[in-house]
Amino acid sequence: MADTIESTQTPTFVREITKMSEDFDRWYTDVVRKAELADYSPVRGCMVVRPYGYAIWEHIQRAFDDMIKSSGHENWYFPLLIPESFLAREAEHVEGFTPEVAWVTEAGKHGRLEERLAIRPTSESIIGGTVGRYIQSHRDLPVLLNQWCNVVRWEMRTRLFLRTAEFLWQEGHTFHATAQEAMDEVDLILEYYRRIAEDWLAIPVLVGRKSETEKFAGAVYSKSIEAMMRDGLALQAGTSHYFGQNFSQAYGISFTAHDNRREYCYTTSWGISTRLVGGLVMAHGDDAGLVLPPRVAPVQAVVVPIFRDAEGREHVRRFVETWQDLIRDAGVRLRVDWSEERPGEKFNRWELKGVPLRLEVGPRDVEANQVMLVDRLSRERRPLPVAGLADRLQEELDRFQIRLFERALEFRRRNTYEFATLAELVAHFREGTGFAWAPWCGRDECEARVKEETGGVTTRNFEPDVPAQGTCLVCGRPARWRVAFGRSY
Amino acid sequence: MADTIESTQTPTFVREITKMSEDFDRWYTDVVRKAELADYSPVRGCMVVRPYGYAIWEHIQRAFDDMIKSSGHENWYFPLLIPESFLAREAEHVEGFTPEVAWVTEAGKHGRLEERLAIRPTSESIIGGTVGRYIQSHRDLPVLLNQWCNVVRWEMRTRLFLRTAEFLWQEGHTFHATAQEAMDEVDLILEYYRRIAEDWLAIPVLVGRKSETEKFAGAVYSKSIEAMMRDGLALQAGTSHYFGQNFSQAYGISFTAHDNRREYCYTTSWGISTRLVGGLVMAHGDDAGLVLPPRVAPVQAVVVPIFRDAEGREHVRRFVETWQDLIRDAGVRLRVDWSEERPGEKFNRWELKGVPLRLEVGPRDVEANQVMLVDRLSRERRPLPVAGLADRLQEELDRFQIRLFERALEFRRRNTYEFATLAELVAHFREGTGFAWAPWCGRDECEARVKEETGGVTTRNFEPDVPAQGTCLVCGRPARWRVAFGRSY
Repeated sequence: MADTIESTQTPTFVREITKMSEDFDRWYTDVVRKAELADYSPVRGCMVVRPYGYAIWEHIQRAFDDMIKSSGHENWYFPLLIPESFLAREAEHVEGFTPEVAWVTEAGKHGRLEERLAIRPTSESIIGGTVGRYIQSHRDLPVLLNQWCNVVRWEMRTRLFLRTAEFLWQEGHTFHATAQEAMDEVDLILEYYRRIAEDWLAIPVLVGRKSETEKFAGAVYSKSIEAMMRDGLALQAGTSHYFGQNFSQAYGISFTAHDNRREYCYTTSWGISTRLVGGLVMAHGDDAGLVLPPRVAPVQAVVVPIFRDAEGREHVRRFVETWQDLIRDAGVRLRVDWSEERPGEKFNRWELKGVPLRLEVGPRDVEANQVMLVDRLSRERRPLPVAGLADRLQEELDRFQIRLFERALEFRRRNTYEFATLAELVAHFREGTGFAWAPWCGRDECEARVKEETGGVTTRNFEPDVPAQGTCLVCGRPARWRVAFGRSY
Repeated sequence: MADTIESTQTPTFVREITKMSEDFDRWYTDVVRKAELADYSPVRGCMVVRPYGYAIWEHIQRAFDDMIKSSGHENWYFPLLIPESFLAREAEHVEGFTPEVAWVTEAGKHGRLEERLAIRPTSESIIGGTVGRYIQSHRDLPVLLNQWCNVVRWEMRTRLFLRTAEFLWQEGHTFHATAQEAMDEVDLILEYYRRIAEDWLAIPVLVGRKSETEKFAGAVYSKSIEAMMRDGLALQAGTSHYFGQNFSQAYGISFTAHDNRREYCYTTSWGISTRLVGGLVMAHGDDAGLVLPPRVAPVQAVVVPIFRDAEGREHVRRFVETWQDLIRDAGVRLRVDWSEERPGEKFNRWELKGVPLRLEVGPRDVEANQVMLVDRLSRERRPLPVAGLADRLQEELDRFQIRLFERALEFRRRNTYEFATLAELVAHFREGTGFAWAPWCGRDECEARVKEETGGVTTRNFEPDVPAQGTCLVCGRPARWRVAFGRSY
């Protein structure tokens, strides 16, 4: 099997975007590539993140980094390479990740290494094996650490942003003196993730706990945010894990408590990744391409000048130059497109790239001291006076952000169902998608049965504090939780 | 040979810092570890960057990222793993880097890979092998790209920050239609690097070109900034390379020029790394520890409250709380140390951590509505009234930044020499260190002779546009350049 594929010398350009309704998967890949978010690379399963995609990731990074720093988390950096013996110390963890590990076995003049080194698939083991030395007493706790880095998970089937052999993420790892404090940390971060998804990416999410089957390898429990894509499939968009003392025992991370006894720490970990960029595409996009929420859009408003000849161009240019810097100084990410394409081509390109607001400026607009506003959602044209334009654009962007969220929420509402029996649920998922709520006893067997009979529908998450009514959709025992089922990426 | 070393279960703490004059290398490692910048890891040659060290790197990142974005550069992300066949395409390049490469040979369920994958030691080859597809015509140029990432170079002898198997850096890669434009880019970035070193890190640098022997593997020429450490050794602190068409020919990166002919691009690459954090330690530190330039200091001013009892503590606390937020809101990174140590211990700790300004606040200061300012350079104590404190602190920080730079400049002046003959230079470097300027014919042989006779002194860089006077210090031929010699890290 060749592990390096595709000659880069023969580029394949995406000429047209497949219609979403025709083939959602191809539509997705077409949009990601044609909107210049990312591209395949010559390394199997690894992607090239292009500037337009990377800029979105930078906005997400900045927002989340500010949140965690405001609550005392600090950024560290730990080694990329993890000795095999380290990875092996926590049994469930190693079992969960080993099938996906890429191994360094030779290096430099050394030649063959005595012990294989794993490229981190996640860093619990290297952090667990390192951070213990900084923790002596309860006064050293909590340790609230985070790192922004790349990880490698050797997946057989990959997809740009959603599942790639290498991806970028943040991974938080925290160490606490009490179980309660660690569990509170899991919830704090989950709330940050909800804000990133809902307030920044305009994607409504289900916030809840994963089942035993779906939790992280080695966790006591995992919580997640789950988003619905426009094909009705679920995307796990962020996870926050509580480990109890599992990892601290495996890695010997202990502290001297108030009563002078040595105790193991309670730990958590949590992560979001560049997968969110893919989620953004699939939650908001349409047949014309991307639709970007203003808060993370690299370009929030694009000016398309309209003119017939060089003189007209000069006329429009002088007009635009009287206000473009005012708009930028007010904090709007504005681009003026002076390229040589025709206006219609520019409209298409910036729609493809999901820019929220387009400002058309022609000779008549210059006379009227106005711009013609077209937004990416409604596509209606409305004149806006240049006086007070910066404030008006900010208002439009704020409104766009809210409308986009509400549209996604409405979409989720229309694609959310409630079932009482396995038969109903199976019947629904024969053709249908979306989220299906059902009462569940909480046992693995019933979950497995649903997965089997539907050919892959799994529990997404549930609110652990909300007791369920009725009986388990599968076995008829009293229900423990009301859980959301769905097919997922 | 064991490739994973050191049990992390038996932490070795640095109790005292070795005196700089006794053993500079041990002094350096003690300071890096005890000031909590970084630490050894269980992976041979890889380090753990701790929050205090990482925060300095974040300040450097932000400053440089703003500079390059202001001139149209964009951040991308390329794969960590590079197929061996890609690395091999540029002959000099592969020869230069292969001895340091860590190889992935096994992955996931695949088991053994058909082709080895290199962990990037630098990304010319993967970027060169990828970016060509985005360049069709001269209208697509220039492509000005950058990435922030980790790289791995398997070094035999490693040192925290200065030479580690894995390090963090930015690598810029640019593609131009003309040689002149590419050469201008090399100089633009070199000027940014000079600003990072001098204006941000307060480290004066020699800005110039490297010799043929010292240039980057595969470059037409390399330029660098070279700093002097407090042991008189040179640190190459940033490099900017001009490749001509070497890489674009090897990787087939061509464009259609105005005259419709297909031409190869002219390319550059350039990088700075976490090595700069080590340079910061060695350029400014002293026997008490770090001295940090305010512009990158994680903590710019620390308040140490002084009191006898709980009542005194409350008294001081109420006072500090009347102004601490005003200082922070004015943009000063202020920390108030309410830990349980004695004031003397706190003084030592924050001096060790190189915090520029210390504000002591005791009962008498509360009465006088003032703080007692002690700066890390002069250590003189001066009262500052609370009225207008934020502005005064900003002024003090600005002055501190300048004084630190001037001190380093003065140190470099005192340790810079001018020699006309090899004999003089060899005699000097028998015991001495520092930079030694000498006229040089530019030939490899003469450079090699200096290196041999001094046991390792190399050319650092030279100003290519300044013609030299006199004759080569080695061979007596007419000098081509005046070049700086030095021992280097």
